[in-house]
Amino acid sequence: MNSSIKLGKLSALLALSSEEDEQAIYKMGRELGYKMYKGRVGSMDSNKIFAAVETAAKKEGLVKPLYREEHAIYHSVLEAYNAICRGQLGLGNVLRSAGLLFSIVRGPRIPGDYTDGEWIAVTLYGNMGAPIKGFEHEVIGLGINPV
Amino acid sequence: MNSSIKLGKLSALLALSSEEDEQAIYKMGRELGYKMYKGRVGSMDSNKIFAAVETAAKKEGLVKPLYREEHAIYHSVLEAYNAICRGQLGLGNVLRSAGLLFSIVRGPRIPGDYTDGEWIAVTLYGNMGAPIKGFEHEVIGLGINPV
Amino acid sequence: MNSSIKLGKLSALLALSSEEDEQAIYKMGRELGYKMYKGRVGSMDSNKIFAAVETAAKKEGLVKPLYREEHAIYHSVLEAYNAICRGQLGLGNVLRSAGLLFSIVRGPRIPGDYTDGEWIAVTLYGNMGAPIKGFEHEVIGLGINPV
Amino acid sequence: MNSSIKLGKLSALLALSSEEDEQAIYKMGRELGYKMYKGRVGSMDSNKIFAAVETAAKKEGLVKPLYREEHAIYHSVLEAYNAICRGQLGLGNVLRSAGLLFSIVRGPRIPGDYTDGEWIAVTLYGNMGAPIKGFEHEVIGLGINPV
Amino acid sequence: MNSSIKLGKLSALLALSSEEDEQAIYKMGRELGYKMYKGRVGSMDSNKIFAAVETAAKKEGLVKPLYREEHAIYHSVLEAYNAICRGQLGLGNVLRSAGLLFSIVRGPRIPGDYTDGEWIAVTLYGNMGAPIKGFEHEVIGLGINPV
Amino acid sequence: MNSSIKLGKLSALLALSSEEDEQAIYKMGRELGYKMYKGRVGSMDSNKIFAAVETAAKKEGLVKPLYREEHAIYHSVLEAYNAICRGQLGLGNVLRSAGLLFSIVRGPRIPGDYTDGEWIAVTLYGNMGAPIKGFEHEVIGLGINPV
Repeated sequence: MNSSIKLGKLSALLALSSEEDEQAIYKMGRELGYKMYKGRVGSMDSNKIFAAVETAAKKEGLVKPLYREEHAIYHSVLEAYNAICRGQLGLGNVLRSAGLLFSIVRGPRIPGDYTDGEWIAVTLYGNMGAPIKGFEHEVIGLGINPV
Repeated sequence: MNSSIKLGKLSALLALSSEEDEQAIYKMGRELGYKMYKGRVGSMDSNKIFAAVETAAKKEGLVKPLYREEHAIYHSVLEAYNAICRGQLGLGNVLRSAGLLFSIVRGPRIPGDYTDGEWIAVTLYGNMGAPIKGFEHEVIGLGINPV
Repeated sequence: MNSSIKLGKLSALLALSSEEDEQAIYKMGRELGYKMYKGRVGSMDSNKIFAAVETAAKKEGLVKPLYREEHAIYHSVLEAYNAICRGQLGLGNVLRSAGLLFSIVRGPRIPGDYTDGEWIAVTLYGNMGAPIKGFEHEVIGLGINPV
Repeated sequence: MNSSIKLGKLSALLALSSEEDEQAIYKMGRELGYKMYKGRVGSMDSNKIFAAVETAAKKEGLVKPLYREEHAIYHSVLEAYNAICRGQLGLGNVLRSAGLLFSIVRGPRIPGDYTDGEWIAVTLYGNMGAPIKGFEHEVIGLGINPV
Repeated sequence: MNSSIKLGKLSALLALSSEEDEQAIYKMGRELGYKMYKGRVGSMDSNKIFAAVETAAKKEGLVKPLYREEHAIYHSVLEAYNAICRGQLGLGNVLRSAGLLFSIVRGPRIPGDYTDGEWIAVTLYGNMGAPIKGFEHEVIGLGINPV
Repeated sequence: MNSSIKLGKLSALLALSSEEDEQAIYKMGRELGYKMYKGRVGSMDSNKIFAAVETAAKKEGLVKPLYREEHAIYHSVLEAYNAICRGQLGLGNVLRSAGLLFSIVRGPRIPGDYTDGEWIAVTLYGNMGAPIKGFEHEVIGLGINPV
């Protein structure tokens, strides 16, 4: 599907994928040696987003129970969360809510190139807006760190 | 390609697209009634990113020469720029550089639904890193505003 | 009172006005074609400020029940709130409280000039400080967006 | 003109005043014991704003040549500058420009109440926008610190 | 112990000191005319950090019950808190916790030089991390203001 | 000197050390297995701070010429720089200057405990202030990342 695939793009495409595309992206990524996971979280409490991604990363074996791995996934979520907030950190405290799909992808920055070790990418994609149905628009955030 | 397409996703997929996918995404978007443009900008001066996107938007007829339209594209770039910076605004001033593809998409938030007027989405996608070849990783930012 | 009136100044003067001046400012603004409202909110929960201004804007007919209008008032409050926080977003979480007057003004950026459509201005003016009576000083914030 | 005058409101009204109102505000403030100054600065370089206000404050005798007084005026400008930027620090680096009137007012927080010493207020008021004539809207910022 | 002592360094060394060094630093500082206090606070609620330092400052007589003194200690804590957060304000809201030692030091910026009056320094030192035992690393923050 | 030494504290003490203490801290740290370096940089251009620390880290062999190591030192400097700026990123652009000592320390978070691999700590300590001699006060920043 995409000849120029890299870690971050793979993570973004997985988060953006519709149900019919999802399996093709998993397949492409796994053949390239990536560990991948896609989940869903919605909340006005920003810490729920952190908890959902970190819990999934541990449960699915994408990070090991070491602080340096936890640190990498945490900072990737923090960067992606920063990105979806676009300058003003906060959800419920500034009266807005987010309904998100998230992806976690682990592997080399460039497929097949392990000289620089493994990295972890987290993409958050979904809607952010007023706590009124349909009063929302899309947001995307990506965070990448070495692991 | 994607049954769940919306304004922001269309913009993100365009920015993320490889050369072989690009035409299919333009075709899909234009059939849905969207105006679309994809360009490229790289710099250590963040104002070059703003200038490149705003100039393209005007030249390609994606925004009219009215301040309220200029305001919409400006704030969309500002939000996308915030997102790629992930909390610390700046490029050259914090000794980093960005090489980016950008997309501009104008149309309804949801294809075919014009009850809420037109919106403009800007996606920045590319690499950010040290001013050393290959010492960089991917970043994505998306900004959306009514126009 | 003021020969150089514009949207933002009108909004600021309304928020700053004492009870005796308030009616003169309403009169001046309404004669120039502006819709105006002044209210009051105090809290350590920042979302109460957003809710108070947005609720007033809808109830008083200053914004229509469309997301693009909601988006304009929301971002105007967000910008004004950012301004009163002066770099460190937060009230109760950084142990401070705000007692505010707010104004909402809708109309052209410059009286009588409708070539650029309507805009909405929100001013927050009042005191911010420790949760101890009198341990506070004044703050002002203004946010303006096309609507 | 205003029975509820306080330090910050006086500073804001001075910055907002038209030429015909300016003298009345100076008169009111000076009769209440305040030192006041109003100037003008426009730039895409944010440090020019700091330099203009600080230079005026020193030249007009509003701060003494001591670091603790310099610190108070500096942080008042920094807070007001933060406020006009509304979350994204920067002018030229994010391709925008500001044309501002500024006021500096020194005296008690509440007229006649010297139990809490002297404070200094800086208001910035004017237009911020694209470097295109007329593509701009109003901004206001206020910073207050004990001196 | 340290021939180049100044207000901020004294505050930092007190916060960093082990139990065996603490008394030597108190002694050195007090002989130089500084008022000093060291305490401890841990929380996921950032306002607890503000409350702990401010309460200690008042109880130990390091600030007087005047707003201008309260303002100085508050802004010193706010700056130190900003520093330990390194760009993303928040603790529990971004799913992290802090266990901190804090010091408060009051006196001249440079020992023996009272020409510039008294200043107050607050240092926060400790660990910040995930709410999992041992998953944390050290942070330091320092805030200084004239009092 | 200090029975409770850890990576961040060691880095902070090295940056804070006077010339007579410096050798004792180097000795203590090196006996515990840490690689350490102390340098000096002063500027109104923030990128000079990044360049000075990164260049020293590479030249002294504290980081290897791999992007994941460069990424770790860069983010440690970025965090420390954020900390000294205390909420408002910038030096010359907000008319202030910094004269700093910096330390770089590499090793385990806790002496002798290599289960969690190596980390890198950067401390910036010095003075920040107006570009007027003596009009400045101390600042400290610490950044820590796994390497």
